[in-house]
Amino acid sequence: MSSQTAPVSLGDLQRPLRPRLDRVQQELRRIVEADFGLITEVNAHLFQMQGKMFRPTLLLLADEATGAGDPRAATLAAVVELIHLATLVHDDSVDHSVLRRGMPTINSIFSHQISVIMGDYLYSRAVIELVGLNDLEPLRVLSRVTNEMTVGEMRQLLAHEPLHYSEEDYDLLIRSKTASLLSGACEVGALLAAPAERAALRRYGMALGMAFQIVDDLLDYVGDASVTGKPSGSDLREHKVTLPLIAALPRMGPAERQEVEALMRTPEPADGQIQTVIAAVADSGGLDYARERALRLAQQADGELEELPASPAREALRDSIAYVVDRRR
Amino acid sequence: MSSQTAPVSLGDLQRPLRPRLDRVQQELRRIVEADFGLITEVNAHLFQMQGKMFRPTLLLLADEATGAGDPRAATLAAVVELIHLATLVHDDSVDHSVLRRGMPTINSIFSHQISVIMGDYLYSRAVIELVGLNDLEPLRVLSRVTNEMTVGEMRQLLAHEPLHYSEEDYDLLIRSKTASLLSGACEVGALLAAPAERAALRRYGMALGMAFQIVDDLLDYVGDASVTGKPSGSDLREHKVTLPLIAALPRMGPAERQEVEALMRTPEPADGQIQTVIAAVADSGGLDYARERALRLAQQADGELEELPASPAREALRDSIAYVVDRRR
Repeated sequence: MSSQTAPVSLGDLQRPLRPRLDRVQQELRRIVEADFGLITEVNAHLFQMQGKMFRPTLLLLADEATGAGDPRAATLAAVVELIHLATLVHDDSVDHSVLRRGMPTINSIFSHQISVIMGDYLYSRAVIELVGLNDLEPLRVLSRVTNEMTVGEMRQLLAHEPLHYSEEDYDLLIRSKTASLLSGACEVGALLAAPAERAALRRYGMALGMAFQIVDDLLDYVGDASVTGKPSGSDLREHKVTLPLIAALPRMGPAERQEVEALMRTPEPADGQIQTVIAAVADSGGLDYARERALRLAQQADGELEELPASPAREALRDSIAYVVDRRR
Repeated sequence: MSSQTAPVSLGDLQRPLRPRLDRVQQELRRIVEADFGLITEVNAHLFQMQGKMFRPTLLLLADEATGAGDPRAATLAAVVELIHLATLVHDDSVDHSVLRRGMPTINSIFSHQISVIMGDYLYSRAVIELVGLNDLEPLRVLSRVTNEMTVGEMRQLLAHEPLHYSEEDYDLLIRSKTASLLSGACEVGALLAAPAERAALRRYGMALGMAFQIVDDLLDYVGDASVTGKPSGSDLREHKVTLPLIAALPRMGPAERQEVEALMRTPEPADGQIQTVIAAVADSGGLDYARERALRLAQQADGELEELPASPAREALRDSIAYVVDRRR
């Protein structure tokens, strides 16, 4: 978001962790393994559409930065990624999404039925694995996180009425939907650390996660100029109300507000209609406001790291903040 | 299934447990409570379509029959019922069912999206509650059961090809889909009991659960003469292959087999077509075979109870077997 510094890539962050991340990947494959053909087949597709392992990265960095050296770290990181995957499978099914990271979704390749069952399968496997670690503590953190995420999904369903959706509602939404799992990943990486460090990492993950989601929502308005040349506006197309619009609305004139309301009433808004609202949001300072909030949350996350001793891993956690706020896609 | 003895009703079985079952009901309401309006609303509908509390009944009887007197029994029974409810919500969503026990399903009243999220909400609440008991043992049993049930759901999706679906496939299906949770309920009621008693109750629940599902599948062919006058045949209508058909097929002549294959190829089979296949299954001994198997499983369940000391609760567990095999609906 600042153009002065060279952007931090996730690849840079992950390079020193590569052997540990490979181990996480192995653990993930072991945990989801099934002796039932259909599940094996779905698993294979899941691994193809798998993400960037940002949550496992945070967990491993939290482990290193607290000097905890938890021997369970790779397994815990795999479980966190598995919970993330289970959520994506259900999300795609709920949203009837066809693509995820450019790959066809489970519901589009197989069926809606298989997606629902598969999400349940993955989540219950995650719980079994945690039980096998013979420690209630990670279960305590991650069962709360998972429940929070379901409440977030419910909140998401109501985020379609711009005139009645407040910034407070939005905050609750992004905390539960996105930040809770990033926070949980950081906390579970510090289970063996001093309570103050564990709490600081939990708060770090929460602030980072909120910034992460705000940037995500901003990118929908700003776009990646180098890639598409214009913003996608897919949230507006789906009538999803996010921070830029919430912040812009009270500053808009009556004509612009009417444009917003018209768009929200249109089942399939045209590109031109979407670009008009994006311009109105930008003109009314909605993008600046959202950027500002993401940066404040980034500073807050940064402040939490003061609780930890200086180390290369702590620097990598700092760089993770830069990665989150500077990313272009 | 035997007409000599007076049928045992679930009400009879539950009468002595009424105060404890009321406590289970209170626990259930406490556990699912949410401070989010939409979830509260869905919960209210859930309680209206709630079932007969057979699983909590078994858990409480197991607790009493082993003399364990586990102070957590009501909570554990509520969690088991909650897992059952979560499964029904996802099942109805996967099957696009409109009614469950004569009440509209969550997916039909609210939406498919809300059903998927709500099932996840209920299950993660169940896990949180178990973690709060500070004992990994119930979690160990119930996380495996939940995972088994998801595998069962996957197996169910493949139970549509009569010529390729064996009795062994069917056994695996009903074990994972139905019997695993009844078995888990009985086992979790005996966590504080001697290991031999706990193991006997686990096996009792497995045999009882398999008998339960076989009788369920039989009732679809036999019907409740006093209610409808003819079998519903809804499994055949949905092209679900169950034990009566599996057992009958090898004994059928070529003409009857062709009737079966034709029905399976017909997207919406007519009533007459269904009644013809039901008659063919009956003529080929499919119903007798399934009845016979249910009775053998009932005997097996009965035998497991020898491991327990004589008590009114043990007699009630015996009566539960009679309830399962004698029920007409």
